[in-house]
Amino acid sequence: MELIDGNKIAAAIIAELKAQVAALPGRKPCIALVRVGEDPASVSYVKKKELACAEIGIASQLLFPPVTISADELFALVDKLNADPDVDGILVQSPLPKHLNEVAVFRRIAAHKDVDGFHTLNLGKLAQEDDTGFVACTPAGIMELLQRSGVKLAGKHVVMLGRSLIVGKPAALLALQRKPWANATVTVCHSQTANLPSITCQADVLIAAIGKAEFVTADMVKPGAVVIDVGVNRVPDLTKKSGYRLTGDVHFSTVAPLCSKITPVPGGVGPMTVAMLMQNTLKARRQSLIQVGNK
Amino acid sequence: MELIDGNKIAAAIIAELKAQVAALPGRKPCIALVRVGEDPASVSYVKKKELACAEIGIASQLLFPPVTISADELFALVDKLNADPDVDGILVQSPLPKHLNEVAVFRRIAAHKDVDGFHTLNLGKLAQEDDTGFVACTPAGIMELLQRSGVKLAGKHVVMLGRSLIVGKPAALLALQRKPWANATVTVCHSQTANLPSITCQADVLIAAIGKAEFVTADMVKPGAVVIDVGVNRVPDLTKKSGYRLTGDVHFSTVAPLCSKITPVPGGVGPMTVAMLMQNTLKARRQSLIQVGNK
Repeated sequence: MELIDGNKIAAAIIAELKAQVAALPGRKPCIALVRVGEDPASVSYVKKKELACAEIGIASQLLFPPVTISADELFALVDKLNADPDVDGILVQSPLPKHLNEVAVFRRIAAHKDVDGFHTLNLGKLAQEDDTGFVACTPAGIMELLQRSGVKLAGKHVVMLGRSLIVGKPAALLALQRKPWANATVTVCHSQTANLPSITCQADVLIAAIGKAEFVTADMVKPGAVVIDVGVNRVPDLTKKSGYRLTGDVHFSTVAPLCSKITPVPGGVGPMTVAMLMQNTLKARRQSLIQVGNK
Repeated sequence: MELIDGNKIAAAIIAELKAQVAALPGRKPCIALVRVGEDPASVSYVKKKELACAEIGIASQLLFPPVTISADELFALVDKLNADPDVDGILVQSPLPKHLNEVAVFRRIAAHKDVDGFHTLNLGKLAQEDDTGFVACTPAGIMELLQRSGVKLAGKHVVMLGRSLIVGKPAALLALQRKPWANATVTVCHSQTANLPSITCQADVLIAAIGKAEFVTADMVKPGAVVIDVGVNRVPDLTKKSGYRLTGDVHFSTVAPLCSKITPVPGGVGPMTVAMLMQNTLKARRQSLIQVGNK
């Protein structure tokens, strides 16, 4: 069994991006990081993104409106960033407070600045295999992990556990593309799937993204499979100072010995998400350079 | 074995649409049918659509630019229809002559008039389960056939043979939706799938859309399965006056006896496509009425 080291792979990508940014003409790429309120997890995520920007040489604009911001005010803020020629990418950190409609906010972001890849148009481009769009960071990170770990998907059976809009569906659409690194046969399972283990046991590559701690057990995995664990769940653990530990959707200790390769949690998919956001921001900057060049 | 009669089901839908159109306030829905050149198959398809409009009470504007029309001229024509408040839906008949970029033309159509459901934004809405969008007519017709034949998909295994943008992918996304009539486990297979029969034999519902005459044989189908045949292939047949016969992607005579239900070709999915186009046109008209009402 080989552990897929997300930290190491993400660090390699960040080093590559740093070199690419240094070689860019004109001003550096710039991302606006919008965080509404002070949710501790959001504070930590946005901080990580800010640090990755600094490491690579991407400029970041930090905008922290109060939790009481109205939908109209947040729309106005997004509109301003959409119109700002010095901003290439816009990230609005999820989750938003309940009085704000997340989908509406994500759609308000101009598609060509939607580095999170949540805009309807970018999802449509993913389905259409149009590479001018932005792919959501977690599914893009999964594909990058697989490629850089030497896992070839062509003709293989990828089983996706979970049909969410930010992981399951886009990851399925990616694995299905007519690309040399894709071309997989893809099955999407979810809470209503009958005889789930009989399907997951067929997976050459099993991707778990259902948000249920240690749901995937040894009887659900084919020996020799590659397992990608997207889950990040807190389970109570009195031996920890925090009172909890992080665990994935996979019961690691019993599943790992069966696998040819597996991602740990933490340190698997997680670090890739930030790296892909940075990659999307560089892509947005490159596209804006081409646009300006064409004018 | 029960034959799913697409002609009968389409006729029932058309009768329902006729009643709904008669009850609409204001002017009747209107679709612009654009056919470039005189391709015989296109002439026949557009004629069928025109007749369905007349039957239901939908107005149709027929536009038949010559095969020599330039991309810019066709864009200008689409722009004019986009701006015309009396046109609810726009259909540009496929295939277009080779000098025209089909994807670019389909994207030029305003998303809210894209009754063919090929626009990137409408595909994204399908993935997002946003029902304000338009679903492409063939996959929408497949789901309608299944529903009206009493086939419940929830928890069932739907195997999609083919990953095209106009059938395979949207049909997979539809079957996967969190809707009472959907909620299927979905596998998408294609030309690169390994051990294809071992996968198709798991299908409770097998949808074949690969454009290969009689490709699906009895050994690829589980006894009791529902089989939907989307293929329309011409095979030489000297016993016919035309010199050919139409056949699906399924070897009907050997597969049909195995099935609980199966669609014939012709007379299965085909007639549903026009019915769904009409349904989308009515939906476009309803949405424009709501828009006007909101102003």
